[in-house]
Amino acid sequence: MLGSVSQSSVGGAPDRKARREELINQVLTDFFSRTKERARPYGHQYVTLWQNIEANTTGGKRFRPQVLLAAYEALGGSDLISAANVGAAFELLHTALIVHDDVIDRDFVRRGQPNLAAMYRDRWQATGISKSDAEHRGMSVAVIAGDLALSFAYRLIDQSGVTGPTRDRLLELMDESLFASAAGELLDIDYTGSIKLPSVENVLSMARLKTAVYSFEGPLMAGAVLAGADENVISTLGEFGKEVGTAYQIRDDLLGVFGNTSETGKSNSNDLREGKGTVIVAHAAQSQLWEHIAPFLGRPDITEAQVTDLRDMLEKSGAKEFAESLLEKHTTRARELLSEPQIPESIRDEFQPFIATLTSRDR
Amino acid sequence: MLGSVSQSSVGGAPDRKARREELINQVLTDFFSRTKERARPYGHQYVTLWQNIEANTTGGKRFRPQVLLAAYEALGGSDLISAANVGAAFELLHTALIVHDDVIDRDFVRRGQPNLAAMYRDRWQATGISKSDAEHRGMSVAVIAGDLALSFAYRLIDQSGVTGPTRDRLLELMDESLFASAAGELLDIDYTGSIKLPSVENVLSMARLKTAVYSFEGPLMAGAVLAGADENVISTLGEFGKEVGTAYQIRDDLLGVFGNTSETGKSNSNDLREGKGTVIVAHAAQSQLWEHIAPFLGRPDITEAQVTDLRDMLEKSGAKEFAESLLEKHTTRARELLSEPQIPESIRDEFQPFIATLTSRDR
Repeated sequence: MLGSVSQSSVGGAPDRKARREELINQVLTDFFSRTKERARPYGHQYVTLWQNIEANTTGGKRFRPQVLLAAYEALGGSDLISAANVGAAFELLHTALIVHDDVIDRDFVRRGQPNLAAMYRDRWQATGISKSDAEHRGMSVAVIAGDLALSFAYRLIDQSGVTGPTRDRLLELMDESLFASAAGELLDIDYTGSIKLPSVENVLSMARLKTAVYSFEGPLMAGAVLAGADENVISTLGEFGKEVGTAYQIRDDLLGVFGNTSETGKSNSNDLREGKGTVIVAHAAQSQLWEHIAPFLGRPDITEAQVTDLRDMLEKSGAKEFAESLLEKHTTRARELLSEPQIPESIRDEFQPFIATLTSRDR
Repeated sequence: MLGSVSQSSVGGAPDRKARREELINQVLTDFFSRTKERARPYGHQYVTLWQNIEANTTGGKRFRPQVLLAAYEALGGSDLISAANVGAAFELLHTALIVHDDVIDRDFVRRGQPNLAAMYRDRWQATGISKSDAEHRGMSVAVIAGDLALSFAYRLIDQSGVTGPTRDRLLELMDESLFASAAGELLDIDYTGSIKLPSVENVLSMARLKTAVYSFEGPLMAGAVLAGADENVISTLGEFGKEVGTAYQIRDDLLGVFGNTSETGKSNSNDLREGKGTVIVAHAAQSQLWEHIAPFLGRPDITEAQVTDLRDMLEKSGAKEFAESLLEKHTTRARELLSEPQIPESIRDEFQPFIATLTSRDR
């Protein structure tokens, strides 16, 4: 997931980011407040569900709305309220996708906390029904919650105050984001079940579809569309989003295995224990060391010493170096795109620091 | 579910209904054809998923689009293509809701056939993974499929050719339909887990939210909005939809226990074996016979003789008579609404036969 993108990596001066965050939070607070009021006649359970959807939306880093607003402001946009509404729409899409993704992964934890399904599971388990029934009920409510969040992703654009062809274009971008994400999620389910390991290309294309389109390309292009930018600026920002999103994924894969946990705040053994299909593993599968690596991957019970061995073998196989050069390739391409003549200086000022974050080796 | 509403019960002359059905099918076929083409670059699995969503949308009776088009034409609407697109949007909402409802009910059969989740479950089980893993994968794909169908319910309205305030109003009706349906589904999950039986009011309000709003009220009002009808016509049709939807539910409950299976083509013991919370059971729970009824409800293993006894006791308890008089009350109210002066004759001609179907005692 993309939740771990550092907020300081997007957009220029800290005060501008803080102002944007305040605006986004205000729009979301207003939205949830209106919607909880609307839910009231349907019963207290429904109000509680909306409180829980709000709780699952709050606490994130507002990454997607921040990206959208950064692009919008850099391109001269000044109707920040409308832009924050469209940004909030992408945040709700994110909520919908992670809530349903957790159902698909049978996951009850998100960011170290009980997720929406877990809140309901625990409540029902307290009534004495079986754990598996309580889990299923929790997941059932999560299905409903995701549907609501998805529905309101479109509705927030409808109600953003943006009209005419610009609104149509924003709805298309939202549609494209959901369409790609569903395709990526489907590929993910397929790979999880397959005996064949996905290739490096498969891993990257799946990650792009599943998260990069709606997290980078969609918000960047939406910000540009809202600002009334030229078509070639919109499409270049989309390509930039693709490169940056890919670079982000590769960096995430690298930190997940070779990261310094005290710096990243993230485990560097979970990906190995889960046997996650990363670019590193996909590359190592082609090496001669694979027969020594494969038996230890995806085994929750391996020791710290075995994890260290695994890490060494992945490095010796050339997989680490390969991933690093791939990361370099995509960040270079992202930098080149920002340097194209149609891209205004202000966009470079906003997004160069973000590329720099991706290439900094805090591992 | 509402799938069993007879098609002949909606709209006037058979040739008009056949023409409408052809139009609706054409719009849906075009939509799926475009979307499968759009899915192609994302891989063959995605095209297959869309084929399966199409298969799960086809085969229904197009009840909601038929209702919408009937109201639209009766109110003088003539842009049948746009109306069929909006009708198809409600059909996609229906697909989304039943696909997710089956996930919530852990159901793998729909209309006697393997549903979307079952198609994927069977494919994966053939690869040798465990039944429970295969089931979960099937349900995971169903979560994705429902998200796509839900998303395109909104998108088909966006692309219907309808613009301006009319489009905004239609999107609001779609939003209201989804909002109500989610509330009803949530109540359903709550009651399923509760030791307390729902009251008659609870049963009816849940059924209204879960299905009647999006199946009757939404399509009727959308047809009227599209036709540019007066506000009081739109709201009266909405109320009519509420009454008819409620009557439909009560009739469904009656047929599910006292129906003649050779006439209804539907089991008259399943509801009892499943312990379904119907108006009949909710009423019987207040009677003195309840202590003799309760022990046999919701037991899949009861014999045909016990089912017959149960049916007799439900009749003796007064629950059958109560449900019949409640059905009468709502159909009368529906008839009264159609007789209000602002409702044109053409609407009465379209929808009186539908009320008649609800009161006919084919049991």
